[in-house]
Amino acid sequence: MTKQQLFKQITQKKSYLCVGLDTDIKKIPSHLLKEKDPIFEFNRQIIDATIDYTVAYKPNIAFYEAMGAKGWESLQRTIEYIPKECFTIADAKRGDIGNTSGLYARTFFDKSSSGLDFDSVTVAPYMGCDSVEPFLEFDGKWVILLALTSNTGGDDFQQLLVNGSENTSRFLFEQVILTSQKWADSERMMYVVGATKADKLLKIRELAPDHFLLVPGIGAQGGSLEEVSRFGMNKQCGLLVNSSRAIIYVSSEQDFAQKAKQEAQKVQQEMEQYLQIYL
Amino acid sequence: MTKQQLFKQITQKKSYLCVGLDTDIKKIPSHLLKEKDPIFEFNRQIIDATIDYTVAYKPNIAFYEAMGAKGWESLQRTIEYIPKECFTIADAKRGDIGNTSGLYARTFFDKSSSGLDFDSVTVAPYMGCDSVEPFLEFDGKWVILLALTSNTGGDDFQQLLVNGSENTSRFLFEQVILTSQKWADSERMMYVVGATKADKLLKIRELAPDHFLLVPGIGAQGGSLEEVSRFGMNKQCGLLVNSSRAIIYVSSEQDFAQKAKQEAQKVQQEMEQYLQIYL
Repeated sequence: MTKQQLFKQITQKKSYLCVGLDTDIKKIPSHLLKEKDPIFEFNRQIIDATIDYTVAYKPNIAFYEAMGAKGWESLQRTIEYIPKECFTIADAKRGDIGNTSGLYARTFFDKSSSGLDFDSVTVAPYMGCDSVEPFLEFDGKWVILLALTSNTGGDDFQQLLVNGSENTSRFLFEQVILTSQKWADSERMMYVVGATKADKLLKIRELAPDHFLLVPGIGAQGGSLEEVSRFGMNKQCGLLVNSSRAIIYVSSEQDFAQKAKQEAQKVQQEMEQYLQIYL
Repeated sequence: MTKQQLFKQITQKKSYLCVGLDTDIKKIPSHLLKEKDPIFEFNRQIIDATIDYTVAYKPNIAFYEAMGAKGWESLQRTIEYIPKECFTIADAKRGDIGNTSGLYARTFFDKSSSGLDFDSVTVAPYMGCDSVEPFLEFDGKWVILLALTSNTGGDDFQQLLVNGSENTSRFLFEQVILTSQKWADSERMMYVVGATKADKLLKIRELAPDHFLLVPGIGAQGGSLEEVSRFGMNKQCGLLVNSSRAIIYVSSEQDFAQKAKQEAQKVQQEMEQYLQIYL
């Protein structure tokens, strides 16, 4: 999917919501457990219910892997089921030496190899350039690089001051954003930015004005959608804001999909306002 | 497996060789392709051939994932087949926010969930403390944290100078080794160190004298086993030196396992000497 196609979908749906399919067998409604593939059945109903309000779906791969081969099959069915108009993100946080990252790229991008055909994958930056480039060799596919994450441990290294090549001090996550722009432009790379604070978002927009940012941490993790939109939006929206638990687990009863729909619609309506104000 | 048990195996086999099971369907001998599970069949024969000279096996998960659910099944069979005396490493380079890392821990450590029961998993440090700790909640299991990798891109961030909490400048990989020692000691954590240079190894041994180091890059990637052993060995050996391609792909004919055996034995004999000199 191109940046232009993604933006088009955003303007059509008046939404930049990404629904995180963090589907945990221990959390889904118990009536689904009698289904042949309960994980897929849950995802299918969530997708049907939220598709009008959502531009992207992001399964976190850990949830599927934890179930072994069976989980992998549920993931495959899910990705096949998501309508092609939607942007799909394999939230896998992979990264290895060049030839091995090439295999991870095959995993998520090459349907003939693994059965999966995502639009993008999240990648950890620690191993640098050649751990990222193999993902970029697949035409039309995206790398979403971890820059600033919102978890407690995010501070341990990402917010250390580093001396970059120009001998100026900046935070490690800023250096990651700067250095990685040599590898791909905003048509092929996005950044994971778990920031809701104005100062951080403004700084990131200074460094990467045109890139899409994937922002987790809205909803269950408590970030403010208004601040993210005010300080993070650019001329092509440039935001995908993810919500997982706060949408997919509103109810654990028969009405879970209906409740997810209401919640997604609520977020979409808020986003529609911000698109009017800040775009 | 405890550190003591690992060391015992090292002294018994007079070896600190780890065989990397980077098994690629495109590279294994063609006569295996008629088998029901060619990947497992290749691994089984490699394990049988090298077991006397090897203390650890390390499947790189990318190779299995790239084949989807089928690859996952081959991995399961492989891990079940490896004798319990051997240390097993899931080279997965995972890492996510706390509850999600918990799922990755389930994937590699909880047989009842995923069918896998590894002794250890490699983890990327970028997301910090809470991305690592869930792996440590499994008794007797290990985290092998990426510190210094030997790929070209390793320099991009790992060798940046950072200002640590004590306002002293050090490389990012050194800071990773220092900070992470607050999370677990040398009985539960190892480091990936793709270093063969004396100065780097000496510095790492200053920071982490007691930890095991997993050293890739011997063989196909061209590091020197003598230097690694001279500068990296501690009183409990403290080294697992990995070789993948240089052992498993010596021959692509019927004799591949026999050739792998000869190669593993050659490395073991060299290691036996270094254990006599440097231990």
